[in-house]
Amino acid sequence: MQEFTVTIKNQKKAVKASKGSDLLSVLVKAGIILNAACGGDGICGKCKVIIRSGEFRAEESKLIKEADRKKGIVLACQAIIEGDLEVEIPKESSQAHEKISHESEEFTKGIILKREGEFPISPLVRKIYIELPSPTLDDNVSDVERIEREIRSRLDHLMLSARLSSVKHLSEMIRESDFKVTVVLGYKAGEVEMLTVEPGDTTKANYGFAFDIGTTTVVGQLIDLNTREILGTRIAFNKQSVYGSDVITRIVHGSDPKGLGELNGAVIDNIDDIIVDLTAFCNVSLGDVYAVSYAGNMTMMHLLLKIDPANIRKAPYIPTTTVFPVINSAEMGIELNPHSISSFLPGVATYVGGDIVGGVLACGIYDSDDMSLLADIGTNGEIVLGNKEWMIGSAASAGPAFEGSGLAFGMKAVNGAIDKVTISDGLEVSVGTIGDSKPRGICGSGYIDILCQMLKRSLITKDGKFNRSIKSKRVRKNDVNYEFVVVFKKESGIGKDIVITEDDIENLKRSKGAIYSAIMALLNKVEKSVADIKKIYIAGGFGNYLNIENAIFIGLLPDTDRSVYEFVGNSSLAGARMALVSHKAYEKANEIYKNITYVDLSSEPNYMDEYIASLFFPHTDIGRFPSVQL
Amino acid sequence: MQEFTVTIKNQKKAVKASKGSDLLSVLVKAGIILNAACGGDGICGKCKVIIRSGEFRAEESKLIKEADRKKGIVLACQAIIEGDLEVEIPKESSQAHEKISHESEEFTKGIILKREGEFPISPLVRKIYIELPSPTLDDNVSDVERIEREIRSRLDHLMLSARLSSVKHLSEMIRESDFKVTVVLGYKAGEVEMLTVEPGDTTKANYGFAFDIGTTTVVGQLIDLNTREILGTRIAFNKQSVYGSDVITRIVHGSDPKGLGELNGAVIDNIDDIIVDLTAFCNVSLGDVYAVSYAGNMTMMHLLLKIDPANIRKAPYIPTTTVFPVINSAEMGIELNPHSISSFLPGVATYVGGDIVGGVLACGIYDSDDMSLLADIGTNGEIVLGNKEWMIGSAASAGPAFEGSGLAFGMKAVNGAIDKVTISDGLEVSVGTIGDSKPRGICGSGYIDILCQMLKRSLITKDGKFNRSIKSKRVRKNDVNYEFVVVFKKESGIGKDIVITEDDIENLKRSKGAIYSAIMALLNKVEKSVADIKKIYIAGGFGNYLNIENAIFIGLLPDTDRSVYEFVGNSSLAGARMALVSHKAYEKANEIYKNITYVDLSSEPNYMDEYIASLFFPHTDIGRFPSVQL
Repeated sequence: MQEFTVTIKNQKKAVKASKGSDLLSVLVKAGIILNAACGGDGICGKCKVIIRSGEFRAEESKLIKEADRKKGIVLACQAIIEGDLEVEIPKESSQAHEKISHESEEFTKGIILKREGEFPISPLVRKIYIELPSPTLDDNVSDVERIEREIRSRLDHLMLSARLSSVKHLSEMIRESDFKVTVVLGYKAGEVEMLTVEPGDTTKANYGFAFDIGTTTVVGQLIDLNTREILGTRIAFNKQSVYGSDVITRIVHGSDPKGLGELNGAVIDNIDDIIVDLTAFCNVSLGDVYAVSYAGNMTMMHLLLKIDPANIRKAPYIPTTTVFPVINSAEMGIELNPHSISSFLPGVATYVGGDIVGGVLACGIYDSDDMSLLADIGTNGEIVLGNKEWMIGSAASAGPAFEGSGLAFGMKAVNGAIDKVTISDGLEVSVGTIGDSKPRGICGSGYIDILCQMLKRSLITKDGKFNRSIKSKRVRKNDVNYEFVVVFKKESGIGKDIVITEDDIENLKRSKGAIYSAIMALLNKVEKSVADIKKIYIAGGFGNYLNIENAIFIGLLPDTDRSVYEFVGNSSLAGARMALVSHKAYEKANEIYKNITYVDLSSEPNYMDEYIASLFFPHTDIGRFPSVQL
Repeated sequence: MQEFTVTIKNQKKAVKASKGSDLLSVLVKAGIILNAACGGDGICGKCKVIIRSGEFRAEESKLIKEADRKKGIVLACQAIIEGDLEVEIPKESSQAHEKISHESEEFTKGIILKREGEFPISPLVRKIYIELPSPTLDDNVSDVERIEREIRSRLDHLMLSARLSSVKHLSEMIRESDFKVTVVLGYKAGEVEMLTVEPGDTTKANYGFAFDIGTTTVVGQLIDLNTREILGTRIAFNKQSVYGSDVITRIVHGSDPKGLGELNGAVIDNIDDIIVDLTAFCNVSLGDVYAVSYAGNMTMMHLLLKIDPANIRKAPYIPTTTVFPVINSAEMGIELNPHSISSFLPGVATYVGGDIVGGVLACGIYDSDDMSLLADIGTNGEIVLGNKEWMIGSAASAGPAFEGSGLAFGMKAVNGAIDKVTISDGLEVSVGTIGDSKPRGICGSGYIDILCQMLKRSLITKDGKFNRSIKSKRVRKNDVNYEFVVVFKKESGIGKDIVITEDDIENLKRSKGAIYSAIMALLNKVEKSVADIKKIYIAGGFGNYLNIENAIFIGLLPDTDRSVYEFVGNSSLAGARMALVSHKAYEKANEIYKNITYVDLSSEPNYMDEYIASLFFPHTDIGRFPSVQL
């Protein structure tokens, strides 16, 4: 097979490529993560690259403007390599420049929910230091029994077993350390397993990771398991994005073993990156990390564990499994302490996964007398309604707009993201950014503010179109689209204007409509009204800030007493963290998922009407939003 | 390093050897298993080989007669290679010619104890065929839950989990097989694990192995787990014998990682040989073997699982562990169905292992109102005394004589072994052999008969010396030793006379003394007498036959009512078999071991006196053997 060299000029990289392979695949294999929402089908137009020189062929695409084509811009997924190439990756195509986001101190701490403290610290992996009496002829029990005798009284579990690998060299080790050892215990289904035994007192060094594996973003936190202190947080775009931006495209790609391997490898890479980065940053040895707890939607969990996801997308939409055993981390190919274990929050059904079960755990809906609602505004806006007697849950296909994906200047809620916006009567804009950095893009809470403010200033109409009559240097028409300049180039941190386009607004409108109509459909299902909800928890990757008032104004959330609302941040991550630091919380999650009934919105009689009616700001039926004055 | 070739003429093999290496190690590595009771220390004189030509050096050994040295006979462990060699392995040095013993149909069935049938068939690995309802929008539980729902009602365990590997490709498989599948379930500590799921109905093919891992012999049986039928039995000398014949020598050898690896590799080889041979013989596919159950003494279990045994032999004699988790067979490097699991009978203490717990299980001592005794006459004659209220156990260092090891013509109780002997007044000898084959050697029960008959005919004295006054062509003195010809060359199957020597008799006397005095010491411990024992179970590798009357006559067993005695054969193997075919029996074994109290004979005040007094036939105190008329 003929081999060529592809040189990526602006990343100082060169990779080998076989003749006839497509450029996107070659770049992905070289670790260059491009946006490719459609998974390489040439539809989304996100994977633009500039070919500076060399031989290739590519079909013409309507997604590339004539002027751009002349500059050498092509869709990487459509470019077939026929010789050595010199290419350049435009910033907007690449995710690589923000492989992992380092957060400000404030963000690192994250939102800690009061409820988290209600479970005792009793982590998934626990260390106990013991000083054993030396064996004698009269006290001649085996080494393992000697240890078990000592720790059994300190445990609330009766079932105790020893992993074979933990005992193989025990005999010499405990004698070398003068019978002073640290026993490392893992909580597994119904029993406690002795994972390993270490010489001396190592109890101080016991760390774990909590992960929220989202369709769009992967968030990891390093936790001190002795104190439940969060040592740091990292966010990265899910590297699976190059195989498609939504779960359906991913499932299609993962329906054969090769594709499944690629998707699995991508997210394991994400996790590895975050683990390596955070442990280095916090001066924690990888060998001192003993436990990992994961939350994520059903598809993400299947891909994470390399479980065939094919039937999730085929009617009647059956996942292979909704619960996952506690396993050795090594089984996933993740390098930590070799004895470390990983647990996974269980899910309810295909579209109500462990992420939402984690949220229910973190918000405490499951043990409240009052009816509460949790809306987790991620790629699949998941919603649970209920109290300690009953819970129902569903998912709206909200899309990743509020996660900062699929929008012209969307970004995650990390340093430099615009998260607060006000627009004055004179159309002057003032913005707040996470970490008070120079603005680099706009995150979900920023977009909510912008939409609200644009509506208030009549910059856009109720159906999300630009008001063509307004004259302002901030409102302009680009090649194809109206847009509003939020931050001009000279104030921005990326050397260009930061704008919101009419397409962005359409996108956001569909997203907010999906969430709102799903909430209403669940209420209809149990014949309740908005006023009956005593507590509404809003979760999502908005960082530490979401303006509830503005979210109601645009019709994302129901118009009810503001005191009902509580913004809880990433509640999926909070749930994973709770399951990590307290096995009681993990066990609670394993009760919760059984008590949530899944509601399939598509088979609810009035759901489509609700959705269509919600494609206005705030809503077709303005009577539902009495506090909104337009 | 200089390399030479060692050619083994009578086995048509040639192996490479580095200059300066010892010949025993080179032969062992080439798979030639020599007797080497002392583990290569030049003490036992068992590893004789004939060097036909070539350069070597060897210290002179008193264990080689001058005449033999002239013929080129050396101890392989003492011969250092200095050039190409041509060697020959004498039959008596080699264990290789009977790597695995094929048994007669009678022996294959073995001794099945009545009690075995009392536990229901509910094997360690169980298969259930199910036809699942196809999923619909209304019945949209996950694939795993669909399966669990179907099988949960058929199980008596509530805890059910799915092994991750069993679900990865489940989704496609169950649809391809039209939702008709066989679920393979493994019983583990307190829970049932879904090991794998197979398309269609495979319930008919479910096989397992039961193994007794003895210090001297390894016995394996292939069992149909649906019917508990024994399909075949194989016996082999434990290949660890080349590293020493007793547990102490093995522990010394296994106290460093290299030695432990060698010992582990040797027994795994034994197991593999038996598995491959028996499955081929019975036309059973390796892939249809899902479960293995092991019994063995504590040292054998440590070596089998590669657990550091060093402290077993150092005061105060502490094993690393006496219980072992159920593990995947693959962890041991044994090739069966990749999802197969292995379980191990738990032991009590260093010298009362899972073999004797298996025996207690098989004989039912643990639930009898009456006081019973089990004596397992193996290398470490293990003894348990008790009833359903209490049990005490101990071990006598009996040595491997009754297992046919360490005697001039000793052999295992397999085809060709002399197992019945009578000697007439005229000193004519008639023998019975296992499988009615031509005699090849003498097994334990044969030796017991010979000793008894020689005593009756005054061929030997009460202290085991030859009666020098008797003139017979069968009694003669070889170079160093008196001996009695049991079978002359023309009747034998090995082309030479089969004899018992004065050294053999001394050896057997010590063995029988160790067993008898241990029984008495346990009785003394609880202040009971022989007459209080309502049932005496005699176990050991005697094949299907042991003449209790003769065993009493030589003073091996106490002189009490013959109806009290029951010969139960290999009860360790029976226990392993029971734990294999019924998880209830396995669970029972896990109760039994906790209820046996270990008695250390060496610290019992009158044990040594008992032992010394028992070094006569039948005993110094003839009053204890009223029925024996000499």
